[in-house]
Amino acid sequence: MALHYPNGQPFVRQPSASTTNYASRGMTLEEELNLSNQYYLEAGLAVVHKKPTPIQIVKVDYPKRSQAVIKEAYFRTPSTTDYNGVYQGYYLDFDAKETKNKTSFPLKNLHPHQVAHMQRCLDQGGICFLVIRFVTLHRVFVFPASNVIAWFQQQDQGGRKSIPLADIEAQGFELKPQLQPVIPYLTGVDWLIQTKVGGTRGN
Amino acid sequence: MALHYPNGQPFVRQPSASTTNYASRGMTLEEELNLSNQYYLEAGLAVVHKKPTPIQIVKVDYPKRSQAVIKEAYFRTPSTTDYNGVYQGYYLDFDAKETKNKTSFPLKNLHPHQVAHMQRCLDQGGICFLVIRFVTLHRVFVFPASNVIAWFQQQDQGGRKSIPLADIEAQGFELKPQLQPVIPYLTGVDWLIQTKVGGTRGN
Repeated sequence: MALHYPNGQPFVRQPSASTTNYASRGMTLEEELNLSNQYYLEAGLAVVHKKPTPIQIVKVDYPKRSQAVIKEAYFRTPSTTDYNGVYQGYYLDFDAKETKNKTSFPLKNLHPHQVAHMQRCLDQGGICFLVIRFVTLHRVFVFPASNVIAWFQQQDQGGRKSIPLADIEAQGFELKPQLQPVIPYLTGVDWLIQTKVGGTRGN
Repeated sequence: MALHYPNGQPFVRQPSASTTNYASRGMTLEEELNLSNQYYLEAGLAVVHKKPTPIQIVKVDYPKRSQAVIKEAYFRTPSTTDYNGVYQGYYLDFDAKETKNKTSFPLKNLHPHQVAHMQRCLDQGGICFLVIRFVTLHRVFVFPASNVIAWFQQQDQGGRKSIPLADIEAQGFELKPQLQPVIPYLTGVDWLIQTKVGGTRGN
């Protein structure tokens, strides 16, 4: 079966710097989440998409009788997280982070504006979290945004610069990899909804 | 006061083909919605962002000691609507459409995949709609996705290729332009939630 993205673009496996660290599969967390989102979409379980990378376009050529070509553009820093969508009436908002670290998740993987965005989404009653992969350990967690924010604030007050794995185990929800979807993060979302850790509805 | 986007980029008014048709303000619907979203964000009322335009990147230069430069890229067709976010626990999903037409909204402004996306979001309990501007009439409506889908299906069965203004008036919610936010679409969202036209919560 040829895989296609929802927009009809064929799925092309992108080479990635982290490929060698996840050699058994050869897929980055982003690629696996895209496949998982596609599975959830086709199964009618959730509508979640990765946002396109924001690009600052400087120069575009418009050749006659053919497609416009962008000739000069720059990557911009995203102001939000990468993934959002809707699941059973809930607003989902999350980012995906990989670390090669074996004992903790370094907070430098997060931008302050992403943390601020997560706080705003929680304030509006969204379900907000990180999907964290410990690449070398082959372990993936759903980690609540409320805990991310707490660790980030502690760091600002001179605390640890990383979240110990033991705390991620205690405060998060470990996902067991499976065939379909590869990253079954909705099980972590169900856990968040049940425990109300990830946010409550506004009304 | 200098306006800035949430990502810290200064707000630069873009020249636009429709500027001449909206000469009194000189802003496209997209620009006005971006300002409205920024207002809602800063006021803590909703978290809604326009998704970046999807780009297929073909060639990138990495000059030493400077920023990566995209040298060849192409515009891709978005597979979803342009705007989504969270408001009081509700998932919002919408697209912005302008028409110079004075008597009806041509359905050719909508791509079938956008309509399919709106149906999927409704199925998941999202609040889904179009913001339609009649440029020459200076009138803006919030129009429920459920009605959009019904008109689209009628067209497929040989029906009208456009939605008459009278039906948009009857089935939609007219927004009265104001200073802040310029496009007060949350009033239309409140109407959608009340009338349950735009979708109901999954649980």
